Amino acid sequence: MIKIIPLLDFPIIEEGDSLGQIILQSYKTNNLEIENNDIIIIAQSIISRSEGAIVDLKEISPSQFASEIAKNTNKDARHVESILREAKAICKQREHVLVTETKHGFVCANSGVDKSNVPGDEFVSLLPKDPDESANKIREKIESETQKKVAIIISDTHNRPFRIGAINIAIGCSGIDPLKKYIGKKDLFGYELKSSIISLADQLCSAAGIQMGEANEGMPVIIIRGINYSRKEVSAKKLIRPAEKDYFR
Amino acid sequence: MIKIIPLLDFPIIEEGDSLGQIILQSYKTNNLEIENNDIIIIAQSIISRSEGAIVDLKEISPSQFASEIAKNTNKDARHVESILREAKAICKQREHVLVTETKHGFVCANSGVDKSNVPGDEFVSLLPKDPDESANKIREKIESETQKKVAIIISDTHNRPFRIGAINIAIGCSGIDPLKKYIGKKDLFGYELKSSIISLADQLCSAAGIQMGEANEGMPVIIIRGINYSRKEVSAKKLIRPAEKDYFR
Repeated sequence: MIKIIPLLDFPIIEEGDSLGQIILQSYKTNNLEIENNDIIIIAQSIISRSEGAIVDLKEISPSQFASEIAKNTNKDARHVESILREAKAICKQREHVLVTETKHGFVCANSGVDKSNVPGDEFVSLLPKDPDESANKIREKIESETQKKVAIIISDTHNRPFRIGAINIAIGCSGIDPLKKYIGKKDLFGYELKSSIISLADQLCSAAGIQMGEANEGMPVIIIRGINYSRKEVSAKKLIRPAEKDYFR
Repeated sequence: MIKIIPLLDFPIIEEGDSLGQIILQSYKTNNLEIENNDIIIIAQSIISRSEGAIVDLKEISPSQFASEIAKNTNKDARHVESILREAKAICKQREHVLVTETKHGFVCANSGVDKSNVPGDEFVSLLPKDPDESANKIREKIESETQKKVAIIISDTHNRPFRIGAINIAIGCSGIDPLKKYIGKKDLFGYELKSSIISLADQLCSAAGIQMGEANEGMPVIIIRGINYSRKEVSAKKLIRPAEKDYFR
């Protein structure tokens, strides 16, 4: 059995907070112990807040290009400017829609620049600069304090082609191979699987997302317990389909 | 806390089997009781087997068009013929890649026509003709026998644009609203969410997929317990992004 356990009463995170320390504390107030192989899924919003990756739109002067895109997409020009600063390419633009490729390589709406769960009227959060590194730091703190082995995954909510409704996916990870390869394994009837690679990390984030919610649930950290996974140092960037093998960009 | 509970020792399903009856029996052999609000996630492969949606490639004569596509994609022409019979459009074709829109409207590889977990060398499984109806029948059987309210979701493994690694998504459902709407709800800081719609059903299938596996795990039915969801009769087709609002086809 797999358990999806929310850390309740998680405090509001501010810039400079040690998330590792706060998660350790939150386990205690939830009467939980860190266990070996706990997978700790953390919402991007609190990583960004702890790292100060928050921007005040009032302080942004949009370029001429950003203003042009803002007009075409019917968006706030300062928001567009902040989106373009995080992007290396624009993938699609339509009214109310601006899909970019971020500097990390994620293809997502608005470069992940998000208004929700950020304090202040005109503040937005940016994705962490290096989400794997953010995950590493938290893992090191937790493992060094507890001598237990855990995995950390940073989750963000993404919309998708073909499907209505966003799901949570992994943008950073530490201590876990985010992919699970079935190629060469046999199915129930002995047939050898030719192509199955599963995104374990994305499935874990979606599982956490069921509990985490998108509004004021106040559960940005979720523990998933009871999974056999491969402990490895593999970047979440392995989950990005290379542009040349992506027929839908 | 949410629990993801596999039904162990699930029997091999054959054409004509009553999945509702077999799931009831499997709960018993797993020492479990049906509980109100259990969400039962079922792998497409056993739905297709129970409904006889299995095709012997040896009995298929490919059309000239299928043979042409087979040459371009380097696939078995009989496989391509079976894919085209399930499709209403071809979305992308490249070497080893044939992405179609199925008659239900799903955009996926090979119209979901799949070789894995089907007995026999040259047999493939087709997606169920009406996956919501398949889910309805199983739900009716379970609810009438137990007087408990459950939800049924039929899950399939899909590859995706932008991301490496497949995930499980919902192709049919019964007794649950597959979408969760946050529009108009407030975030932690009182900001009103403008656009969040989450695919609860897809996230549930991904959560089940962690446990279900892709090879010979023999766990095609997974119970998810501990979720507050909206009991409604809404088709899983609501999860399909209409072509005119899909900028990536």
